[in-house]
Amino acid sequence: METLEVIRKRCSLKTHLSGRKIEPEKINTILEAARLAASARNMQPWRFIIVQGKKAVEVLAHAFAESNLMIKQAPAIIIICARPGDDVMHDGKEYYLFDIGMAVANMLLAATDLGLVTHPMAAFNEGEVKRILHIPDDVRVVIATPLAYPLEASYDEAAKERLSQRIRKDLKEIAYFDRWSELEPA
Amino acid sequence: METLEVIRKRCSLKTHLSGRKIEPEKINTILEAARLAASARNMQPWRFIIVQGKKAVEVLAHAFAESNLMIKQAPAIIIICARPGDDVMHDGKEYYLFDIGMAVANMLLAATDLGLVTHPMAAFNEGEVKRILHIPDDVRVVIATPLAYPLEASYDEAAKERLSQRIRKDLKEIAYFDRWSELEPA
Repeated sequence: METLEVIRKRCSLKTHLSGRKIEPEKINTILEAARLAASARNMQPWRFIIVQGKKAVEVLAHAFAESNLMIKQAPAIIIICARPGDDVMHDGKEYYLFDIGMAVANMLLAATDLGLVTHPMAAFNEGEVKRILHIPDDVRVVIATPLAYPLEASYDEAAKERLSQRIRKDLKEIAYFDRWSELEPA
Repeated sequence: METLEVIRKRCSLKTHLSGRKIEPEKINTILEAARLAASARNMQPWRFIIVQGKKAVEVLAHAFAESNLMIKQAPAIIIICARPGDDVMHDGKEYYLFDIGMAVANMLLAATDLGLVTHPMAAFNEGEVKRILHIPDDVRVVIATPLAYPLEASYDEAAKERLSQRIRKDLKEIAYFDRWSELEPA
């Protein structure tokens, strides 16, 4: 699909997850998209753990916030993590978080392009996730997403309602020309 | 262009910047792509400052690392910033950085799709950038990119050499199945 169309159609869907297995080639394409992201000094701090299989997904799902428990219906959960020390830090800004954001955005777009459903989640018990997946102490778990075919016949059908309700700030609230020019609160 | 093709072709180019003015519609399309990114609890912490005009770009360029001084040839520099307090923090992980990464990835892909050149830069004198652009104290400047047409006749021509030399970790170094399974250092 066209890039701008995929950017417009990508949305977070967690109540539309079919248990249908995802072809390994598709998982590979999604990981490859993440791999090609830019990163500070090309440090590529991102590490991905792909958890598949009904039992393993269900065990992992219990480490997430109650409101996300339905991810246990997905055939796969991808956990994205990094060692903060594998990236630069400037004045307290830890760029591993920024770089992971860039890789995950690529991943979400690639999944959308393939007709798959995602839902990035930051609310989880990090200690539990690390224990379950044997992640070393010095690694931080940043984000996770289920990866699934939609329950509906197509991604478009699954996303239709959600997209019609999407809320975003107006461009003039977030984009300024020439200098900072925040609107005064109404 | 197809999404996966744009993801493959996107690369950081800073020595191929033409001074040719960028159409406002294209800048708008790029900002719109960023606006549609996902963010934690839909907080949308990102703010963009678009600096244009030879003089303003040149003044701003001097706040960047010497190795990036060539960005002064670009017709526009986009500065991306946020208030950390406008986003969630979990156990010391500041998600404004992650969310900005997702918005910037969308932006870079939209620019590539439009045939424009970008180069995300994290090395700058943040105090200087804030002073020049009147950015409030509680806002952090995270990343910036020049935005330009390439000097060459097309994006593909401009990116060809750089893409042929691209270095990325092998997928098996960064993607693990079922549990953490880092390869032992050779």
